[in-house]
Amino acid sequence: MIIIGEKCNGQFRLVGKAIDERDESILQDLAIRQVKRGAHKLDVSVGAGREDAPDAMKWAVEAIQNVVDIGLSIDTQDLETMEAGLKSCKRKAMINSTTAESKKMDAMFSLAQEYESDIICLTMNEKGVPLDATSRVELAMIILQKAMDFDISSERIYLDPLVMQISSAQKQSLEVLEALKLFRNLSDPPPNTVVGLSNLSSGAEERSLLNATYLAMLMSCGLTAAILDPEDELVMKVLRTSQILLNQKLYAPSYLKA
Amino acid sequence: MIIIGEKCNGQFRLVGKAIDERDESILQDLAIRQVKRGAHKLDVSVGAGREDAPDAMKWAVEAIQNVVDIGLSIDTQDLETMEAGLKSCKRKAMINSTTAESKKMDAMFSLAQEYESDIICLTMNEKGVPLDATSRVELAMIILQKAMDFDISSERIYLDPLVMQISSAQKQSLEVLEALKLFRNLSDPPPNTVVGLSNLSSGAEERSLLNATYLAMLMSCGLTAAILDPEDELVMKVLRTSQILLNQKLYAPSYLKA
Repeated sequence: MIIIGEKCNGQFRLVGKAIDERDESILQDLAIRQVKRGAHKLDVSVGAGREDAPDAMKWAVEAIQNVVDIGLSIDTQDLETMEAGLKSCKRKAMINSTTAESKKMDAMFSLAQEYESDIICLTMNEKGVPLDATSRVELAMIILQKAMDFDISSERIYLDPLVMQISSAQKQSLEVLEALKLFRNLSDPPPNTVVGLSNLSSGAEERSLLNATYLAMLMSCGLTAAILDPEDELVMKVLRTSQILLNQKLYAPSYLKA
Repeated sequence: MIIIGEKCNGQFRLVGKAIDERDESILQDLAIRQVKRGAHKLDVSVGAGREDAPDAMKWAVEAIQNVVDIGLSIDTQDLETMEAGLKSCKRKAMINSTTAESKKMDAMFSLAQEYESDIICLTMNEKGVPLDATSRVELAMIILQKAMDFDISSERIYLDPLVMQISSAQKQSLEVLEALKLFRNLSDPPPNTVVGLSNLSSGAEERSLLNATYLAMLMSCGLTAAILDPEDELVMKVLRTSQILLNQKLYAPSYLKA
């Protein structure tokens, strides 16, 4: 299970302000804290609608790398910003993300090829996010086919079935579980899968409980990576416990402390 | 999701003592507390190795029924004790349990027929608990076939894939999840399924966290009933949350308070 920390994100007010002011300390503090709690990678977003996005991304990546030696997930829809981020990464990076739209895949897979990075692929297209599991699988097949054209092996692909808000799209939580199960049959070894976990509880009460409970279900359906808040104690405890229950880590009475 | 309270059980020291002394108040307090926390049924066991077991069971059932109007699960391997319990039940009872052993099924299904009760069927036989999911399914098929011979419809059968201790049989937690998924294909509508949840964490630290996390996974694999501790707050919160995530109950921001 690959844990990708979500907190270095310009959409959070304090982070956005820190990026405006090029104040490294806030971003670096978040990076250090997340790694300390178990993050294997960190997602980096400078936030949408920023004119200086490519420069901001380069600055953010460098600031974070000055304090943690860890792979980064460059989170932007803008090509120029993506490339600025990838170019600054010292370790293998992750592109976050492409959709199944042909033009978008051409552009992002080219970058993945050039920078030898992993890539998160959202199972959506110009029509939006499909409402059922099988349509997500169809898009996943289009993605995997295109990735082959770019000589990108399936281990580098992270399929994202798109977790929706429980408060506005309750039925989708079931469809995402089903999609994860179906994705496993698409390649051998199965493709990696990833979700943005916190989307589930956006706008809801009981965020931590919803995220943690869903994470256990997602993992039992084969999820291999998640973008989440490593400082959410319940989420991390349930993650460690799920690894034990799914036989991914060896049980020991003190497994939580390990 | 049918919640069966586990606490009226003579294996717990205080309950055993209350049964010895025919002290109704302890058993009745446990019954009331479990129903208050959401139990739909209560499991009743007088504990093993008791010479007065049939009389004790009759007394326990009557004591509990004096304070709560709820279905009971009569938990014993002894036929005479089972019949004493069933005979005393005012509401539709549940037999807990038979195995897939032919003689045992003959006896317990006869009682299920006579008392029109539901019945928990453990997917094990004289050889013990199988170590893989498919062997559990084979035993489930034998059970369902035998139930048909007794004219017991599949809605009255609760297949129990047997949750084992994580501390001594870690890999079994995966096999049980897999078995639950496979059970769903055995009949239409699918047979009910049940587990003794707390077995998982017997002898482990972090009991509540292990039980709660596993419950989310079990429910996402189709579990329809569980014997558990309704006074375990985390377990019950995760249960309510799982019902929302699996679209079994309608989401509302205050779903936990409902």
